[in-house]
Order: sequence, then C-alpha cells, then structure tokens
Amino acid sequence: MRVVGLMSGTSLDGVDAAVVEFEGADERELRWGVRAFVTVPYTAERRERIHEAIVAGGAAALCRLHADLGEWFAEAALAACEAAALAPEEVDLIGSHGQTVWHEPPEAGRRGATLQLGCAATIAERTGIPVVSDFRVRDVAAGGEGAPLVPWVDRLLFSLPDRRRVLQNIGGMANLTWLPPRGDPSPLLAFDTGPGNALIDAAVTLATGGRETYDRDGEWARRGQVRPDLLAELLSHPFFHRAPPKSTGREVFGRPFVEALVERIAPTTDRDWADLVATLTALTARSIADAIRRYALPRGVDEVVVTGGGARNPALLAMLEGELSPIPVLHGDVLGLDPDAKEAVAFAALAWAHVRGIPANIPEATGAAGPRVLGCFTPGGRSRAPAFIGISG
Amino acid sequence: MRVVGLMSGTSLDGVDAAVVEFEGADERELRWGVRAFVTVPYTAERRERIHEAIVAGGAAALCRLHADLGEWFAEAALAACEAAALAPEEVDLIGSHGQTVWHEPPEAGRRGATLQLGCAATIAERTGIPVVSDFRVRDVAAGGEGAPLVPWVDRLLFSLPDRRRVLQNIGGMANLTWLPPRGDPSPLLAFDTGPGNALIDAAVTLATGGRETYDRDGEWARRGQVRPDLLAELLSHPFFHRAPPKSTGREVFGRPFVEALVERIAPTTDRDWADLVATLTALTARSIADAIRRYALPRGVDEVVVTGGGARNPALLAMLEGELSPIPVLHGDVLGLDPDAKEAVAFAALAWAHVRGIPANIPEATGAAGPRVLGCFTPGGRSRAPAFIGISG
Repeated sequence: MRVVGLMSGTSLDGVDAAVVEFEGADERELRWGVRAFVTVPYTAERRERIHEAIVAGGAAALCRLHADLGEWFAEAALAACEAAALAPEEVDLIGSHGQTVWHEPPEAGRRGATLQLGCAATIAERTGIPVVSDFRVRDVAAGGEGAPLVPWVDRLLFSLPDRRRVLQNIGGMANLTWLPPRGDPSPLLAFDTGPGNALIDAAVTLATGGRETYDRDGEWARRGQVRPDLLAELLSHPFFHRAPPKSTGREVFGRPFVEALVERIAPTTDRDWADLVATLTALTARSIADAIRRYALPRGVDEVVVTGGGARNPALLAMLEGELSPIPVLHGDVLGLDPDAKEAVAFAALAWAHVRGIPANIPEATGAAGPRVLGCFTPGGRSRAPAFIGISG
Repeated sequence: MRVVGLMSGTSLDGVDAAVVEFEGADERELRWGVRAFVTVPYTAERRERIHEAIVAGGAAALCRLHADLGEWFAEAALAACEAAALAPEEVDLIGSHGQTVWHEPPEAGRRGATLQLGCAATIAERTGIPVVSDFRVRDVAAGGEGAPLVPWVDRLLFSLPDRRRVLQNIGGMANLTWLPPRGDPSPLLAFDTGPGNALIDAAVTLATGGRETYDRDGEWARRGQVRPDLLAELLSHPFFHRAPPKSTGREVFGRPFVEALVERIAPTTDRDWADLVATLTALTARSIADAIRRYALPRGVDEVVVTGGGARNPALLAMLEGELSPIPVLHGDVLGLDPDAKEAVAFAALAWAHVRGIPANIPEATGAAGPRVLGCFTPGGRSRAPAFIGISG
C-alpha cells in the first residue's frame, strides 16, 4: 500500500508530503520505506493569510482558508507523487493532519476542543485519491488531549530491540515520546514539553521586521547571552510544572507571548534582541531537558533522538546536549529517514491504521477514555477540475 | 439498514433527527419508512451562541462551537433512537449535515467554499454509531454550489409515476426541486429561490426585542399591509435575477439584511413593524412564485408541495396560493411524512448513499463537474464518556 502523508505544522513553514510504502497486513510484520519526501514552502503571502485567519479571522476567513488549504495540500500531495515518479492513480491513500487553527486541551469540568482545517474533499477531488483526515478530534471527543498523536507511529516504526529511546520532536511546539525496547509491553510516555521553535521564530521575526523568520544556524542565539533572571521567570510558567499527559500550542507559546515579552523588556539594540533569542532558545532547551529528566529518566533513557526543524539549530542542540550530558543526543538521521519527513510519515502511518481499523491513539499519552480508530474517510474518484477554478491567495 | 438523519438549518430552531429504515440494495428497489422523528429545540442560550460564533466568532469560538454542536447533535440522535424505541446499538449509521457557519458559492474565477461545523467524531463517540458527515463540501470542491443537496433524495423518495411535482422547501432559506414523473430521464431542476423564513424571523425578533422569534401562525403578516414600493425594491436584488443553478444563505438574506432595512425605514409603531413583516412575507412568496413560473412552469407543473417551517405560516401559504393559482399548492403532509422531518430524512438517505458508494449530488442542479460520492465516514465504536466531561453552553 502506497500512502501519502501530509503535515502542516504550527511553524507555518509549508506542507510536508511523504510517499510511504507499507508491506504486511498487521503491525508486527509491517515493513515500510519512504519513497519520496518534499516540502512545499508557503509563500510569505500564504503564511500571512493562515496566520491572520487564525489570530483575527471570522467564519468567512476560516471557511475560505479551509478550501484554500485543501488546494495547497493537494498540490503538495501531487508534488510528492511526482518526486516518487508515481502517477496519482498508483497511490492508494492520503493521510492529512490538516492545519490546526485552534486547540484547547480538556480542563477541569470541560472537554477539550480542536479544529483542524484543510478540506479533505478538495484533496480527494484534485488528486482522485481517498483521504483520511481529522485524526486529532476523535481522541479529544474521547476526553483526551488530542496530542501527541505520533507515539503509536513512533513505536510502530522506531522502537529498537535493545534500547530505551526518547524521540524528541522540535517543531513549532516540542513533544517527546519515550519508547521501551521493542516487544517490552511497558506503556509509552508521550507529551508536549512546551515551545519548540515558535518563540524563537517569533523573536527573530520581530527583531528583523520580518526579513528573517527563523534563527538560521542558531546565529542569533550564538551572538546573544542567556539572561538567567529572565530564563528563570519564563520557566515558572505553569505549563512546565504540570505532569503529563499535557499538550500545548501557539495560543500559549506563540507570537503574542513574545510580543508581550518584547513590550516589557523593550529590546533596542541588536545585542538586546540577540540576548532575547538566546534566552528563548535556552527556554526551549531547558524545558525539554527538564521534562526528560523528570519523566523519562526514571524509566531509563539510552539515547535521545532529535527531529523536526529544531534539529537544524546548532545553538539549540548544543544547549540540549549540555543539559542532558552524558545521555547521547543524536540527530534524527539515525532513524533512517529525513528527520524533516518524520511527521509526514507519521500521518501516512495513521491513515494506514485507519483503513485497517487499528486504534492509534495512546490513551496513557493523551488521557483519552480508551483506544480509538482515528480519522474520517473521504472517498477518492478522479475528476478534472472545472477550468474556471482558480485558487485565491 | 436503520439510519438517523440529523439536520440543523439556518433557522437555528434546533436539531431535527429522524430514524429511517431502508430496505433493498439499490435505488430502484428501495423501500423506506420513517420510524421516529424528533426536534430538539435549541435553548435561547445555545441559539445565541451559534449566532454569535457565526457573525462575530474567531477561531477559538468556532472551535468550541464545533465540539459543542457535536454534543448537541449526539443528544438529538440519541433522543431519536429513544423515540423509535431503539437502542443505539440497533442503529447502523448516522448522517449529519452539520451547521453551516459560512457558505460562498463559486463566482467568476474563484471556487466556492463552505464550512459546516458539528464534530462527527463527537457524535460517533457519544452514540457509538458510525457517522457520515460533511456532504456539502465535496460538491463545492468539484466546482458546484454545494446546494441544493436534497434533489437526489427528492427523486429517490418522492417522485410519482404520473405527475410533475415541485417540492418547495421553506426553511431559513427556500429551495425547490422540480421532479419529472418517476422513470422519466429528464434532468432535475433544483435551486435556492431566496429567503425562506430568515427575513421574517429576523423582523419579528427585532420588532419584539427578542420576545418572539418567528411569525406564529402568520399573525404579524396578517395584521400588516404589504408596501408595494418596498416590495418592488427588494425584488430588484440581483440574486432573484440570476439563472439557476444558484444558492444563497444568511450571509445574503439574514439578520444584517433586515437590520439595514430597519435602519432605513425606521419603523416605530406596531403597525409599521407589521407592514414590514407583511412585506418580507410577500417577498418570500413572490420570489418563490417567480422562480417557479420562470424555471419550472416551462417543464410542466402538476402540483407544488410545500415543506419546512414555512408550511406552518398560513399568511405565507395564502400569498403563495394567490401567486400560483390555479396550480395546486399542497401541504407537505401529502408526502407521507411529517413535513418538518423531510430534511432530516434526506440526510439519512444521503448517508445510505455514501456507504453504498452512490453519487448523490445532481450536477445539473449544483453546477459541479460531475457526480460525486458525498460525505466522509467516521467509524463508530461505543465508549462511555469520561465522567468529568461536561458540555459548555
């Protein structure tokens, strides 16, 4: 079975699309390989439209975004097929996470709520391929956090016979999965550790008036010095002190968080801004390391594997190594796939699970009432798009 | 196969839920019957929340509404099961239209977009029954108006061997289906004629400061006099002069439309308000009659059957009879089911079509590029909701 996995994360970088081949009928005898991976970056205009719709849009803007994201996801799926030298007819299924526009974990007395946009019907219409989408919401409906969703995939694809691994993903937010050795029935541990690149990206964007949108090669962080007072204060955020399961998002650690901070400490010189980026990088590294020490280390950790955009930030990685020494901190390359592809591959695997009727949430990680088959299925059926159809934005 | 159909229309009256039994494997040999029908009215608070989220809500409010509507739809589905003396385990499927929060038909150079909320995963979680939802969006993705969706159902359930029928539904908006005699391969005609009860409801609500929300028994309209100048002006709205296929919604004919009108004509006395309601009732009747005369009559019309909330407004029905005489205008009772149940029954039939892989849009009515299987499928799987789960609102 050939499956395209689609992911558009909270970083709003673009759409990741992986073509994954699965062989074998069940989880134990599964063999898999990534046949192609592409990232279709958002143009600045598209990124701004998504951001605007999320922070300021109403029903009309979100409705239009839903349709347009469907078009953009379809483009990315077709680009991945092309990179794999496959016609869309040769692909069996698409798994699409969608773009999270709002996510509220459950709180005392109130169930969670989550909204992913990116019209599955549009993806099916443009590609002709059936689509499984909206994975997160079933776990939320069952009382869970709706996150993290990848631990089931992590165990399926990345557990090792002889090692206890922490897989640390650093996207817009950061999340970890602790994996027992393969075959060990211990429950998984998986939760969001807090911000990933989101705060760093926001600070660099504000520092440069939008000319730069992330800390390339960690250079801003390297030029600055961590402000221990500010770091200590930021680490007092209640999220870091909650026990897992827990999840978070840009509504907590996003641009408004950094804007409020900037208003208060009023950086003026380049050096002030570099100090801010260094401090936010340290916040990300320290909150990840604290989470690993508190919750994973008691179960044993033989290695930490870092994936996601954060794996390309040497300043962040160096801080994380310093924090966790002597535990080896490995680059996601060791997983045998492009680390950027990991989340897209995960949604291909989750779509594979859906059509096989395999529950893929991990209740001990999300807090859901029980295992559930995630996602909803939209039939394929090729058709030529009417000639007049344009894509706004 | 037992299917619950769920509908929550633009009137925001409540959730209609019908339990429908289907026998037979395909369209030609289908037999069907309605086993139960209930309407679970929205409380004033819920209605206002939906309205507020639609007109003024952002991502957070719409995300929460999505989850809560899912809970409310599940309540209605369970109420319908109870009314049918069935345990949820004895029901095979739910078809849910969802609550439309925004709908933009295609315009030159730009595809349409539509957003229905009402979390299918929540309905599946609370009932344990599989759910087919999001019917409208696939037709829109295929270049169609996404409306009307019921003509396929109308032909399936209500065409007669020897008569050409217009089925005129008057909900928040009004839409018609012209049906050739059963077995006649003529294409259907189906489109939105314009406002249904939405403008009348808004005027009564404004006139009474919210104490009344609709024109009970048409009494406001009967007390007032139609203002011919105002009626002529309102009939000049471009929507009425577009040829089908066409669809509309509250973003065109909704509360803001009436608010703007009220600001301009400034009704002060009870009589002024009654005249306004009478004029808006005439607008609804005339726009329906004009549409029938222009587009259906050339194909032959033996009878007009009125369904939806508008069938309970005698002032509106009398005006419509006057306009269409001598064509018989029949109450929806002749269809052999509670006319209020018709739309809920339609979504049960559309869910039935989905699981059989039958395309159910009518391209000649919607303008879509071709026939499509509508909807997406969310697996069931019963579970007890965690005890802490409350429903906000």
